[in-house]
Amino acid sequence: MNDTRLAPKIRLHVAQPLGPAQTVPLEREQSNYLFNVMRLGPGDLVALFNGRDGEWLAEVITAGKRAGELRCHAQSAPQRMPPDVWLLFAPIKKARTDFIVEKAAEMGAARIVPVQTEFTNSERIRRDRLQAHAVEAAEQCGGTYVPEVTDLLRLDRLLDQWPEDRRLMFCDETLAGGAAGLSGFARGDPWAILIGPEGGFSEAERARLRGAPLARAVSLGPRILRADTAAVAALTLWQTALGDW
Amino acid sequence: MNDTRLAPKIRLHVAQPLGPAQTVPLEREQSNYLFNVMRLGPGDLVALFNGRDGEWLAEVITAGKRAGELRCHAQSAPQRMPPDVWLLFAPIKKARTDFIVEKAAEMGAARIVPVQTEFTNSERIRRDRLQAHAVEAAEQCGGTYVPEVTDLLRLDRLLDQWPEDRRLMFCDETLAGGAAGLSGFARGDPWAILIGPEGGFSEAERARLRGAPLARAVSLGPRILRADTAAVAALTLWQTALGDW
Repeated sequence: MNDTRLAPKIRLHVAQPLGPAQTVPLEREQSNYLFNVMRLGPGDLVALFNGRDGEWLAEVITAGKRAGELRCHAQSAPQRMPPDVWLLFAPIKKARTDFIVEKAAEMGAARIVPVQTEFTNSERIRRDRLQAHAVEAAEQCGGTYVPEVTDLLRLDRLLDQWPEDRRLMFCDETLAGGAAGLSGFARGDPWAILIGPEGGFSEAERARLRGAPLARAVSLGPRILRADTAAVAALTLWQTALGDW
Repeated sequence: MNDTRLAPKIRLHVAQPLGPAQTVPLEREQSNYLFNVMRLGPGDLVALFNGRDGEWLAEVITAGKRAGELRCHAQSAPQRMPPDVWLLFAPIKKARTDFIVEKAAEMGAARIVPVQTEFTNSERIRRDRLQAHAVEAAEQCGGTYVPEVTDLLRLDRLLDQWPEDRRLMFCDETLAGGAAGLSGFARGDPWAILIGPEGGFSEAERARLRGAPLARAVSLGPRILRADTAAVAALTLWQTALGDW
């Protein structure tokens, strides 16, 4: 085995269980990435995580062009779950939607929910592609958890079935006061953060959000933020006030 | 003149002074944008700002393919200066560097300073292109101020000549505690925020930053953030604690 004192540079998300001496067969795409693109070979180390069992150091046992096998060596980091906060956002242009998903995964959102509002332009998303972005963000950023990206949901229906115990932080550009809207809450409650569409909420949506007993409006400052910027800013406020920062 | 009750959708940054009945000749590129791309014509309204005189409603007087003239009508927003905070960052891949500049302008940085650290990969930037991104962000986001993007500066030289009264928030991934590092400071002091390179600071840089009397380390949470995410998160913490949020 190659030098184990150095942390491997490659982190890979896999679906299989991870544990002592567990073997992990690789899919074609993973084998291509590790052995053709990154040129790893037998004896090299990779860090694996599956969202449940923490991070494991694994050694390459067999390396083929279309298949391969790794074997887990030792756990290198415990499983770490993010706080129970969902990020709800209205999809925008492709590149910025990708960014929102990437940023939400980096910032420790537990679940990513694209929502269709009255003023959402984009009515279709590629859920599988967005999920792949969340996986890649977790691989890059040392996380052991990958948030699920759900299908596109209509905001009105989502509010109709809103879970009784989940609070909702919604970003209202007409307010001042930063994170003041989050003071007085205890850590540990389930929350969701809602980022509005670029065209803003409709009057009906705004009235409904303002009237919802579990909803809290929060300001993101005096300048208008793009949706991707607002997602990171809102998660920062929430993580600092109520999350794991 | 067309309907003045509607805010014009187009905001344009210009270099000229703005004031009552002030005429504003347009450059070739601006004329092309307004009259060919956006198809405006005489009588249409545009919002103008120059970073000094607030936002003005201006009317198209003449519209040609390569030139044109606007005339200021009334001030539609006062000049609003951001708090005195600089964003220092180590340039990364092109698209993400562009994003950092865009985000810093949206988030209300007063000045954007690309810095070369020991582990910075990219040693050249296109200052004019980055400045154009800052202008575009201000146009999009309703700002009346455009932060200057400076040339690339070496971090060690910048620290050698550091202004005596400017505090420095630097983001240290080895800390916990969110914005705690910012408590106890009064609003109104000049600050700079330093985002490290993707490869981290060198030991020498870290020691120097830790030892600087005006520097304060702040945590950005338990996950590793990409530099563009870290820039937005750090500006959010600072604006909430000490800025204009």
